[in-house]
Amino acid sequence: MIDFKIIQKSEETNARTGILKLCHGDVKTPVFMPVGTCGTVKALSPDDLINCNTQIILGNTYHLYLRPGCDVINHFSGLHKFMNWNRPVLTDSGGFQLFSLAGLSKITSQGIEFKSHIDGSKHMLTPEKSIEIQICLGSDIIMCLDECVKYPADLHTAEKAVELTANWAERCKNVWKNQTSANNALFGIVQGSMYKNLRKKSVESLADIGFNGYAVGGVSVGEPKDIMLEIAEHTLLLLPESKPKYVMGVGTPEDLVELVAMGADMFDCVMPTRNARNGQLFTEYGTINIRNARFKDDTMPIEAECTCYTCQNFSRAYLRHLLIAKELLAYRLNTIHNVHFFNTLMEKMRHAINSNSFNKFKKDFYSTR
Amino acid sequence: MIDFKIIQKSEETNARTGILKLCHGDVKTPVFMPVGTCGTVKALSPDDLINCNTQIILGNTYHLYLRPGCDVINHFSGLHKFMNWNRPVLTDSGGFQLFSLAGLSKITSQGIEFKSHIDGSKHMLTPEKSIEIQICLGSDIIMCLDECVKYPADLHTAEKAVELTANWAERCKNVWKNQTSANNALFGIVQGSMYKNLRKKSVESLADIGFNGYAVGGVSVGEPKDIMLEIAEHTLLLLPESKPKYVMGVGTPEDLVELVAMGADMFDCVMPTRNARNGQLFTEYGTINIRNARFKDDTMPIEAECTCYTCQNFSRAYLRHLLIAKELLAYRLNTIHNVHFFNTLMEKMRHAINSNSFNKFKKDFYSTR
Repeated sequence: MIDFKIIQKSEETNARTGILKLCHGDVKTPVFMPVGTCGTVKALSPDDLINCNTQIILGNTYHLYLRPGCDVINHFSGLHKFMNWNRPVLTDSGGFQLFSLAGLSKITSQGIEFKSHIDGSKHMLTPEKSIEIQICLGSDIIMCLDECVKYPADLHTAEKAVELTANWAERCKNVWKNQTSANNALFGIVQGSMYKNLRKKSVESLADIGFNGYAVGGVSVGEPKDIMLEIAEHTLLLLPESKPKYVMGVGTPEDLVELVAMGADMFDCVMPTRNARNGQLFTEYGTINIRNARFKDDTMPIEAECTCYTCQNFSRAYLRHLLIAKELLAYRLNTIHNVHFFNTLMEKMRHAINSNSFNKFKKDFYSTR
Repeated sequence: MIDFKIIQKSEETNARTGILKLCHGDVKTPVFMPVGTCGTVKALSPDDLINCNTQIILGNTYHLYLRPGCDVINHFSGLHKFMNWNRPVLTDSGGFQLFSLAGLSKITSQGIEFKSHIDGSKHMLTPEKSIEIQICLGSDIIMCLDECVKYPADLHTAEKAVELTANWAERCKNVWKNQTSANNALFGIVQGSMYKNLRKKSVESLADIGFNGYAVGGVSVGEPKDIMLEIAEHTLLLLPESKPKYVMGVGTPEDLVELVAMGADMFDCVMPTRNARNGQLFTEYGTINIRNARFKDDTMPIEAECTCYTCQNFSRAYLRHLLIAKELLAYRLNTIHNVHFFNTLMEKMRHAINSNSFNKFKKDFYSTR
């Protein structure tokens, strides 16, 4: 079972450090979770992830359910052995992907009807089924199926989604609590679009049911940055202090710094991995695009002080060459740097919180960009 | 400078083991050289290559000349530092790629006119320029520019190519011997299509000029397998015994075993790397295609006894899943296995030669396929 211990609360902000005790090991928070959609964080091996100091990855239930499918995963007793990853995994519910990827999703109170983006086959994802799949995947942290509305959403749509999300959360909890080997955690997801009263209502209904942790869903869905941060802060402050708080699908290094200051403990985002494959690399001085002609004969690494495998071994000119030549090694080396950058940023924030110097950290962080 | 020492001659066949002493280290022969076309063996890092026991790689002069170009490579004092590979490199002359890749190649006694396959720009590759580029690349073994004719070639065409190849070889030697820091080796390339008397003539003209090693070119260019082996054997027997003998662009594991028995010391081929990316994996029991549905839930590694990183960590089912999902990790893991397989095959052959049991090795090799 999950346990969450708060180690240190920042005296200057709402930031805190903690330890999430999960079936596959401890996770120091605040933590960033690289996204491993199809049973691999794109371009990286499990060793690469460990060498980048990755503590926990996110797996996508929708993708893994369709391919390779639970029948295959069952032969390995879960995703961990299938992909040879021994550290914790959080899986999403599959719902979010249905809205963005699958064809003709239809939502009823029962669940979500959808067509596979791979072969067009018809499926139905219910709250019960989502939990069953995630249990089959052997996830350390299971997410409730929710209804995530796009931005902007009218009040009625947002209200309906909050109600359906609460109803589904209860059904998820019922399936989850009846599992025989309950060594995983179940998190609820707060919705409510950009309506603060709906966010409050959503938090309350989830807290009534009771979960091991709570996620802020329905942010970073198209709204302006200032609204995202305002709604996230509002929601984070409403959530139970003793439980881990997870902001889903976020974000830039700046977002992470702001949200940690607001008390967020967990994050996931495709940004470090996807942008790496496009040549956008994160540095202390902001992002660079390694395709840029100014790197043509640049013998320096991406960042002189960086301790990642890529920066320890390769130059900007070489990385530029690989990406322009569409060489497969480019994607791996760029991804290693970006994932290492995000993990290191979180580590620096944990250190700053533990030494009660988060505001100084934040000032230094912005001073170089 | 290069030195080649023969360690052991097989008593049963013409196979031999040796040590090639090159600027960037010693190479045990017979050796297979993975192909690193654009400054990377596709999908692998230098560490991966070392972990696969790779002793020497091949770089493609044509590709590297066009991209990133010598101006960039010069900033790194050669290909080794550019790609962070500290072991030996052999570069081809660029000629072969011109025939297969570049547009509108025109051959004159001066050299080869061609258009870049990247941007259509016009270039001229002369014997002198090929050597200069390879010196800029910092290659340990430089290959002479030759004219490689396709199969079938009429006697006149083949004869002309042998003459031009001899003429160009002399021009290459002249440029090469005048370089200031001559710590590399120069190899001549035998042509002559499938005409044994032309092969003899080509060997004699090259031996008169004198090279550090000799390559059998113009094989594996579309001819039937038995003719390839017959011509290669004929040519290998004509070559100076004291110099390394390199069969270019070959081949399957079976080809390597046959050619080693004929006295070949060096090989290169895209087969292990290219086929890996298509899912064809080499095993002691022949090749398998990992996409095959029979591997869907197969928890075993590619080969139970294999010590490569891939077999030590991942199952056939996972590799199948990755490839079908077009995940980048698939290409790396498959390539690691195939390169390791080829390097291990060569190691086994060296061991068999050194222990005077090559015929037994060969019998065992064929018994499992």
